[in-house]
Amino acid sequence: MDFSASINPLGPPRSAIDAIQRGLQALSAYPDPDSSQLRLALSSWHSIPPEWILPGNGAAELLTWAGWELSQQGVTYLPTPAFSDYGRALRAFGAEVQDCPLSISNPSIITLPSLLLNAPDSQKGLLLNNPHNPTGTLWTVEEILPYLETFDLVVVDEAFMDFLAPGEQESLIPLVQDYTNLVIVRSLTKFYSLPGLRLGYAISHPDRLQQWQKLRDPWSVNVLAALAGEAIISDTTFQQQTWDWLKPTRSKLFTGLASLKGLQPLESVANFLLVKTAISSTQLQETLLKQHQILIRDCLSFPELGNSYFRVAVRSETENQRLLEGLASIL
Amino acid sequence: MDFSASINPLGPPRSAIDAIQRGLQALSAYPDPDSSQLRLALSSWHSIPPEWILPGNGAAELLTWAGWELSQQGVTYLPTPAFSDYGRALRAFGAEVQDCPLSISNPSIITLPSLLLNAPDSQKGLLLNNPHNPTGTLWTVEEILPYLETFDLVVVDEAFMDFLAPGEQESLIPLVQDYTNLVIVRSLTKFYSLPGLRLGYAISHPDRLQQWQKLRDPWSVNVLAALAGEAIISDTTFQQQTWDWLKPTRSKLFTGLASLKGLQPLESVANFLLVKTAISSTQLQETLLKQHQILIRDCLSFPELGNSYFRVAVRSETENQRLLEGLASIL
Repeated sequence: MDFSASINPLGPPRSAIDAIQRGLQALSAYPDPDSSQLRLALSSWHSIPPEWILPGNGAAELLTWAGWELSQQGVTYLPTPAFSDYGRALRAFGAEVQDCPLSISNPSIITLPSLLLNAPDSQKGLLLNNPHNPTGTLWTVEEILPYLETFDLVVVDEAFMDFLAPGEQESLIPLVQDYTNLVIVRSLTKFYSLPGLRLGYAISHPDRLQQWQKLRDPWSVNVLAALAGEAIISDTTFQQQTWDWLKPTRSKLFTGLASLKGLQPLESVANFLLVKTAISSTQLQETLLKQHQILIRDCLSFPELGNSYFRVAVRSETENQRLLEGLASIL
Repeated sequence: MDFSASINPLGPPRSAIDAIQRGLQALSAYPDPDSSQLRLALSSWHSIPPEWILPGNGAAELLTWAGWELSQQGVTYLPTPAFSDYGRALRAFGAEVQDCPLSISNPSIITLPSLLLNAPDSQKGLLLNNPHNPTGTLWTVEEILPYLETFDLVVVDEAFMDFLAPGEQESLIPLVQDYTNLVIVRSLTKFYSLPGLRLGYAISHPDRLQQWQKLRDPWSVNVLAALAGEAIISDTTFQQQTWDWLKPTRSKLFTGLASLKGLQPLESVANFLLVKTAISSTQLQETLLKQHQILIRDCLSFPELGNSYFRVAVRSETENQRLLEGLASIL
């Protein structure tokens, strides 16, 4: 039972599988280099002109090109702990990176280090993750705005934003046409449980996206991913099911974890919970796997967290219950 | 009827579609960053250790990283006419490119410009395509060897090599372990008719491939492509069918084209023919499409060829016959 990857357990939606099945007829043709249909669908979903959208081979491919552009800034600020692939994308083309440790000890006051606002460097980049992985914290648009005003390039990875119901999201997409220094990266594979298919997109100024398009090959998005993408973003039934499932299920898992000796989960808006643990998370992970065939995510890939934290995905109520029982038997 | 893309009309093979169908169960998991199973299969096929192989999101993704590395050479020599995506891959990271026009007027003596061998630059790169698109010419291993001896980095795109029966191929793969300056790029989507799925691989020294792996995101090859790849390379029935079909069918199409007024096809080992035309290929393309719903490839994306040439894929005997009749009605 895999709690280590933060993938929606309700998916993939039937609409995606049906679209892929239909797409098997189309594999003998090259993908459309412009992903015109998919862009139109995303354009209408986000109320953004299609030329402001660039689909990619997973959000990770777009992070590569964001990393390439950040490497041209004097320095890039990276709030940590951070998703380990950010390091790869930034190092790939030699970006100068300045880690900015977040205060995790008191999760309710996680804030961007305000000193950043007065950083002296010209050509400053910022790579932000909202909601933040692994803490599950959400910054408001208002909290991010000052950074948009002062940084030369702000890349915001909103890979988990769609796990919030539309009224609760704090996406920067509505601002993108006002800030040419803003890049938003979105994933379609976590919410829709399709990480094996690879599909993400960037939203930013058309000039920037055209430049990225020239760097990468013209057929980066495979035909099946493009077709699935068009289908899922209009699958409002699946979206509503996910929102209806997540909130109460996460809340129950949170309460269950908080009631266990030595565990202290952090409030999260996403489909995962970061949990502080009194005993070593590596040891906990090992025992859970051996005794209960349950895999949790230790936090060794987040050096700031190490052995004191683990992360679990929110899964079905039954599976979450088994996790809680497994943990209770060890602690 | 599309003669413009050089895709095997016999595919995709049933083995690929079956593997993809089975893979639909696996889309909720991330791809294996090491593509271990696919590499093992390719390793056994080519008799090369797996660490010498790097699968990619189509050959085009690997050309991007080859272009990145060629951009670090003082100059890269590019025999022309050349596949237009080479230009993109080389320009992406600012490679210094020196075009080397091939002699097309007498196709039987297309040779690499020998002056290259004595080029004075240090850090010289070469980007070669064998068999060559669009001429269909094949260079022997012996003809390429001197370039391997004198160039600092030689990238050979063998995207169409598998259209030759094993005994007729002139692949450099058997030499790769002797030349650390050699990169071979292969495609699995032309022979197996899967360009919509994206799958290719590079064969080169493990140090170089690990470096490329650090540049790109870890999940570049989607799960379905990896599974299809494992299935098709052991589909010896489909391979034999293709070899049995191609040779006599291409020969018949060649004879048919040569017998038409004003047309002069070039001998080709690949699944396409380049044809010199007395009347403008643009005009020919337009008329064929309008009057016969047949699409041929004009050669405007090869500036050296322009209006005087067109390229056609070899398709089924019936389709080829319709192409010949369509051309005859115009010429």
